[in-house]
Amino acid sequence: MRQDYYDKIAPRGQLIVVSGPSGVGKRTVLRKYMAEHPRACHSVSATTRDPRPNEVDGVDYFFLSFEEFDRQIRTNQMLEYAYYNHHCYGTPKKGVEDARAAGRNVILEIEVNGAMQVKKLCPDATLVFIMPPSWKELERRLRERNTETEEAIQERLEIAKEEIAMADQYDYIIVNDTVEKAISRFAQIVHGHRYSINCMTEFLKTYIEGEIHAQERLAY
Amino acid sequence: MRQDYYDKIAPRGQLIVVSGPSGVGKRTVLRKYMAEHPRACHSVSATTRDPRPNEVDGVDYFFLSFEEFDRQIRTNQMLEYAYYNHHCYGTPKKGVEDARAAGRNVILEIEVNGAMQVKKLCPDATLVFIMPPSWKELERRLRERNTETEEAIQERLEIAKEEIAMADQYDYIIVNDTVEKAISRFAQIVHGHRYSINCMTEFLKTYIEGEIHAQERLAY
Repeated sequence: MRQDYYDKIAPRGQLIVVSGPSGVGKRTVLRKYMAEHPRACHSVSATTRDPRPNEVDGVDYFFLSFEEFDRQIRTNQMLEYAYYNHHCYGTPKKGVEDARAAGRNVILEIEVNGAMQVKKLCPDATLVFIMPPSWKELERRLRERNTETEEAIQERLEIAKEEIAMADQYDYIIVNDTVEKAISRFAQIVHGHRYSINCMTEFLKTYIEGEIHAQERLAY
Repeated sequence: MRQDYYDKIAPRGQLIVVSGPSGVGKRTVLRKYMAEHPRACHSVSATTRDPRPNEVDGVDYFFLSFEEFDRQIRTNQMLEYAYYNHHCYGTPKKGVEDARAAGRNVILEIEVNGAMQVKKLCPDATLVFIMPPSWKELERRLRERNTETEEAIQERLEIAKEEIAMADQYDYIIVNDTVEKAISRFAQIVHGHRYSINCMTEFLKTYIEGEIHAQERLAY
């Protein structure tokens, strides 16, 4: 990786939060994007549910007891968390911070409520919402999985409506009409957002203090 | 130019406002960028100053009388304007709107006060501020021009300080350490910002109305 000027002035990696309705193809887009962009990584979530066969603690999830999860919430160690299906799911701050400090771009694939929590805690996070090209296409993709009852599909569609109604809280909207185009749009957003004012606040402060005020002090 | 999904859902071109201190190299960056990106264009400004030899009305500027300029301000035909050196300079709305309607990305190179006027009138504009890599380098670039007195250079540096103090009002910050890198950053910002929520507001409204509410109405 060649060192760019921005690696010096803004060395921390970006934090990119991605949401979108179930069935929109988030996971496929993000996996392929990460395969092509080794600077990006995902962070390991924590959960109170039991590991499934083959799931490894610290790799697939951090498997925590309810007591430990609750303790981590109370001691501000969670960037965001939610209760879902009788279990807690969350993103531990430490993994995200360590990766960003090492210059990696951290991608969080989380639902809308979690995304709003991150937005509050990390003003320099980039929030991306992935939309289906049409409602019919979302239904088609959900049915194509062929793993769920009609009732479960209808429930997912109801949730999708609520999620799409929150899309205006995100920084960017990607329509996933084809996976390749969605990946390329995602890459453009990540690149461009590096120069956004939210990511450059520290730099600006240091610049004005170091360059301009320093020069003014010299003048006296 | 291949038609992308976004050419259908968000067919208007983007409006990109660029500011930065005198001597930072804005013009070089933008000219080269536009040469490489034919979708981009600049809009012709209006001014009350007299044409210089070789300047053509409607090409270099729209040369207007004070009365006509004033009339256009009062009838809301100016996107932004400023008084400078005993003359008025401004951006007529019509040219910008026509070009955007035709899908062109319009680039305005204007100073900070004008940029703030555009920000208010066009929430979907992208504001980019170009910074020198250091204060010393800005001084060097101003002196290198070799066209101005020391007093004029000091005055430009004073104005530069005030301008940089406004940089946090912009959406993106580009450091112009080398022209090629600045162009590539600018291109990434323009690409990525196409998907920003400010540019997607209309799409989201139409989407929710057309896709989701339409589907709900069918259900009854």
